Amino acid sequence: MAYRHSAARIDRDQELRERILESALLLVVEGGFAALTMTTLAERVGIATGSLYRHFRGKGELAAEVFARASQREVDAMAAALNLPGSEPARMAGALQQFAARAWQSRRLAFALIAEPVDPEVDERRLEFREAYAAHLSTVIEQGVQSGTFRTSSVAVSAACLVGAISEALVGPLSPQARAAREAGQPTQQLADVSAALVSFCLRALAAEESSL
Amino acid sequence: MAYRHSAARIDRDQELRERILESALLLVVEGGFAALTMTTLAERVGIATGSLYRHFRGKGELAAEVFARASQREVDAMAAALNLPGSEPARMAGALQQFAARAWQSRRLAFALIAEPVDPEVDERRLEFREAYAAHLSTVIEQGVQSGTFRTSSVAVSAACLVGAISEALVGPLSPQARAAREAGQPTQQLADVSAALVSFCLRALAAEESSL
Repeated sequence: MAYRHSAARIDRDQELRERILESALLLVVEGGFAALTMTTLAERVGIATGSLYRHFRGKGELAAEVFARASQREVDAMAAALNLPGSEPARMAGALQQFAARAWQSRRLAFALIAEPVDPEVDERRLEFREAYAAHLSTVIEQGVQSGTFRTSSVAVSAACLVGAISEALVGPLSPQARAAREAGQPTQQLADVSAALVSFCLRALAAEESSL
Repeated sequence: MAYRHSAARIDRDQELRERILESALLLVVEGGFAALTMTTLAERVGIATGSLYRHFRGKGELAAEVFARASQREVDAMAAALNLPGSEPARMAGALQQFAARAWQSRRLAFALIAEPVDPEVDERRLEFREAYAAHLSTVIEQGVQSGTFRTSSVAVSAACLVGAISEALVGPLSPQARAAREAGQPTQQLADVSAALVSFCLRALAAEESSL
């Protein structure tokens, strides 16, 4: 019975860990990493703060795990869009539009993932995930170079430039400053405009005429 | 005499603060923000750690100040290059080449400024300085749009994309991983290649043919 007991305990631990991570993600969706504190999270989950520390050594480790899970969903979504049927420019455009639209749907989370100032553990993961995005983009750039729709002297540099362009184009419109302006009724950038300008910039950079869509 | 005494004291305090910041910058040049600890810095300056805390509340505040000073130099250098005589594409290309060359000359510092995982206080300043770069780039993009050498549906989005592309193109080649590869004698990206690919990407993105240089 000792074995069964401990297996059941591992299951319960695993289930609680999942609940903690889901609640943590919701806090970040609502208020960014700034809203993710060990005390608030313990209250949300309905456990003692001490129990939380049995699962995560601290805010940095927890934030890094939430970041990695949420980012993996975005990487997967981009990879899926890049792999749809169509020409390379069309697939690239579709993937960028989808990325921008998903960010717009959950702006606080998107800003938190891309640029919110937070523990260095999250910065570490940001560097890793930027490489993951770059790898998927590289594949499509290479395919485009082979089919003659894209042109570049360095697939690696172009892929890195795309990753930077995509995230930086969204940082401003997703920022707390933009949210404050919107809430004050001031004019702010619209998704359609930012998305269209981003797609133009990236396709031209890859030497694909937009008419080739 | 009391006034003179305190004025002299303020001067000495100011001078010591300068010495601390210069030593701190040298530590970052040598080993990134990871090498900047209050203990190491106090030893370098030849003061007690307690005295250091009289000038800076902690590592985060100190790192943010070192970051801001070093970044301001880069922003100023880019602004100067963008304001040289010449066509907009030529000035843009020159500024990007100079930025890459300066980063290559001091790789650890450049990686520290662009992407090293570090205290959130530095992340905050990174967001501010990215806006400073974008403002200078916007001016030249607008001039190019007026002279007909550049074309974009959104100057703001294009400027943000450029800032992202420039920093992301350099993150990989400047990273600790690239340094380790270089030190192990493995082939790594060369400045000339990265710089040329970055310039091509950005000028094409702005719809300027490279032949227009």
